[in-house]
Amino acid sequence: MTDKKEISAGIIIIGNEILSGRTKDTNTSTLALWLNSIGVKVAEVRIIPDIENTIVETVNTLRKKYNYIFTSGGIGPTHDDITAESISKAFNLKYEIHKKGFKILESYYKPGEFNEGRQKMIWMPQNANLILNPTSGAPGFSVENVFCLPGVPSILKSMLGGIKNKIVGGEPILSQTISLRTVESEIANSLTKVQNQNTDVEIGSYPFFQAGKLGVSIVMRSDNRTKIENCAEEILNFVKEKNIEVISRS
Amino acid sequence: MTDKKEISAGIIIIGNEILSGRTKDTNTSTLALWLNSIGVKVAEVRIIPDIENTIVETVNTLRKKYNYIFTSGGIGPTHDDITAESISKAFNLKYEIHKKGFKILESYYKPGEFNEGRQKMIWMPQNANLILNPTSGAPGFSVENVFCLPGVPSILKSMLGGIKNKIVGGEPILSQTISLRTVESEIANSLTKVQNQNTDVEIGSYPFFQAGKLGVSIVMRSDNRTKIENCAEEILNFVKEKNIEVISRS
Repeated sequence: MTDKKEISAGIIIIGNEILSGRTKDTNTSTLALWLNSIGVKVAEVRIIPDIENTIVETVNTLRKKYNYIFTSGGIGPTHDDITAESISKAFNLKYEIHKKGFKILESYYKPGEFNEGRQKMIWMPQNANLILNPTSGAPGFSVENVFCLPGVPSILKSMLGGIKNKIVGGEPILSQTISLRTVESEIANSLTKVQNQNTDVEIGSYPFFQAGKLGVSIVMRSDNRTKIENCAEEILNFVKEKNIEVISRS
Repeated sequence: MTDKKEISAGIIIIGNEILSGRTKDTNTSTLALWLNSIGVKVAEVRIIPDIENTIVETVNTLRKKYNYIFTSGGIGPTHDDITAESISKAFNLKYEIHKKGFKILESYYKPGEFNEGRQKMIWMPQNANLILNPTSGAPGFSVENVFCLPGVPSILKSMLGGIKNKIVGGEPILSQTISLRTVESEIANSLTKVQNQNTDVEIGSYPFFQAGKLGVSIVMRSDNRTKIENCAEEILNFVKEKNIEVISRS
């Protein structure tokens, strides 16, 4: 919505368990909230299966389209973990043992425990940059603008701190939410007018049911706090005129 | 994994609220579980913003690639609800008032309540097929193989029954999960052998933390129950040899 240069990201969730519906994806939300806080906007998410060609093609399409790409999933020790090998192919790099990664895991495990299965986790694209893992040892990695993280939500979360200084974001994306006791159709026209007069603020309208009652959350997003405040005032003006209850503003 | 003709689906989640991280997507899981039960496999999910060009391009790319496409979000009455108009453009169809839809909503609301905002919800691609909405009146619609559903999870869920007979699936995709008290690297090699000997069964391995303890869930998926059972027996054989505790099998 703003004319300023936006820093964009694409997220690629790799994993049959999400596509089968067995597991609900929460990594998108974790990554998006974190990226917003450092001024990066998620432009697109793709959830794809554990199929090498699909991973290679998706990575190669999106890494040219957005400033940063984050992948989640497929970097463990089992046969269905094929992200590192696929990323090697995408970048036309050798897939090999990462020496520094090997040393990290060798000292992480007790003597004799760093078996073949675990060693698979430090096979990576040649010269990949390690992303340290404070939770469970096995590192992630990045190649150019592509950052590869694990699928387990708590481990992924614990690794974000380690890459913060590798991401150059823009202004943090701010948001404000006004929740109203109304239905969308009551405010649709007025809200359209406010959006048309505030093109630098992205306004979203989201109906909800809570404790058996209907409501609508209006979310304003921009990198400019004053513009959000002005927009909020215009919304509160028509809300007052229409005698609609404001449930919360945050 | 199987050579039989697979019926495939793509899911398109339309909504800035998912990309911003504010809302976690649960519709993918709802749709995928339901589709699996009627023999349709979700091949890909894309989460995209409320931008017309992006919606048009994504729909036109995916509808040729998969048997069925399901969109979620953007069919309400507010300015950010642009799915119906975008689908009209994708199919090069007029965007107009749907007469049957108009009658449904006219009788759904009390006299005088069917205002301009609500009327926006029955602007649709010409000759679209309605998808009835038992929860909140406003129908979804389909054009050819593209089914457009709302973003509110409970409403989306309530509308699936109404389209079941419009989807021709294959054999239902069955699954079985064996949860073990172990870590992935202990079983990686044995599991690879089982996968190589059972190429018709898709085997996934998913580590978890539960009540402070580590475990791994092995999920087997196929449309053939016997093949899953054989695969499970092979897994339980090496599990027994390795003296690994079976937490559950379901």
